[in-house]
Amino acid sequence: MLNEIEIVKPMDIEKRSMAIITEELHGRTWPEPEFSIVKRCIHTSADFDYADNLCFSEHAAQIGVEALNRGASIVTDTQMAASGINKKRMRECGGEVYCFMSDPDVAAEAKERGCTRAAVCMERAAALQKPLIIAVGNAPTALIRLYELIQEGKIKPELIIGAPVGFVNVVEAKELIMTAGIPYIVPRGRKGGSNIAATICNAMLYQGGR
Amino acid sequence: MLNEIEIVKPMDIEKRSMAIITEELHGRTWPEPEFSIVKRCIHTSADFDYADNLCFSEHAAQIGVEALNRGASIVTDTQMAASGINKKRMRECGGEVYCFMSDPDVAAEAKERGCTRAAVCMERAAALQKPLIIAVGNAPTALIRLYELIQEGKIKPELIIGAPVGFVNVVEAKELIMTAGIPYIVPRGRKGGSNIAATICNAMLYQGGR
Repeated sequence: MLNEIEIVKPMDIEKRSMAIITEELHGRTWPEPEFSIVKRCIHTSADFDYADNLCFSEHAAQIGVEALNRGASIVTDTQMAASGINKKRMRECGGEVYCFMSDPDVAAEAKERGCTRAAVCMERAAALQKPLIIAVGNAPTALIRLYELIQEGKIKPELIIGAPVGFVNVVEAKELIMTAGIPYIVPRGRKGGSNIAATICNAMLYQGGR
Repeated sequence: MLNEIEIVKPMDIEKRSMAIITEELHGRTWPEPEFSIVKRCIHTSADFDYADNLCFSEHAAQIGVEALNRGASIVTDTQMAASGINKKRMRECGGEVYCFMSDPDVAAEAKERGCTRAAVCMERAAALQKPLIIAVGNAPTALIRLYELIQEGKIKPELIIGAPVGFVNVVEAKELIMTAGIPYIVPRGRKGGSNIAATICNAMLYQGGR
């Protein structure tokens, strides 16, 4: 059985994978950089539902690419997403990746106030006062608090990647954030996750230079 | 719209999510600890395909739970999976989480030998000479090299979680590892990923104590 497996160079695997995805999309296409994002979400999940559920506000992907190229930083709500974002490309662009979820003072404050750590993390993001892309891969409460902070004029991200995954409040939080008046990329419905949030960031980072 | 979102305590969200998943499985059930793994894979992806694609060798999940309780360590092929595994529970059980993918000497050796970093990482795992669960969330070449090392008698993991995702050699590498004579948990087909590899580890870790 071992000899049935074809040797493909790692560099060629991605190229061939993208060709297979394009073929199986049966002619469906998107303008760039949206198309790259759709393909990368499918590449990272092997789930073609992302061809149907990804919603982009007008020019959202291009806005994200340009913000990253100008050195915008990314705040995410999971360590997994933070570790999946290409740090080398971020450094080249001049931005940083922040995740405050494991900070002991975030946990303490959330406990004291009876809210989620993710909500406190969005307040930490607002306090950074710099150009930001907010990439949510887990907590609907992050999107809900983010929406409130935007309404209060306390944060104005360049772009919101709203990709929590799950069964409780996830659909609603995504619909809410799409009304916040900020450019967004959102896989509508239940699907998403840290891997999807990270891959959307990487798809935009790779547009900038590679 | 904000007031349409019900306030649910974080602790209750998981419980309610699992109840929704169970309900939407329409009576399908698995023996434990397999059932917890199936539900957690769906919870982490919102993708019910995992109810159909997850394959367990005989008693594989119980073997994994017991190995972790005895302090087995986990080796994974991505930093994302490593960062997603519950480190607190690992510490309680006495095991470590290893990922060698970013080690500079791994990259150098892979380049020199013309193989993938993931393949070199499996050799590093073999050199650990301790009870291990191998959790692959990305690279089919990790599974292929692992299969060879098992055949050569250089490694004998307690359990293999074979969950790379993708379109090239992924299906074949999973089928191969299922013939290696080692207990396995494999989402057959193209689907998987770092999130799935990590969540299978966590599902087993949570069986041990919580």
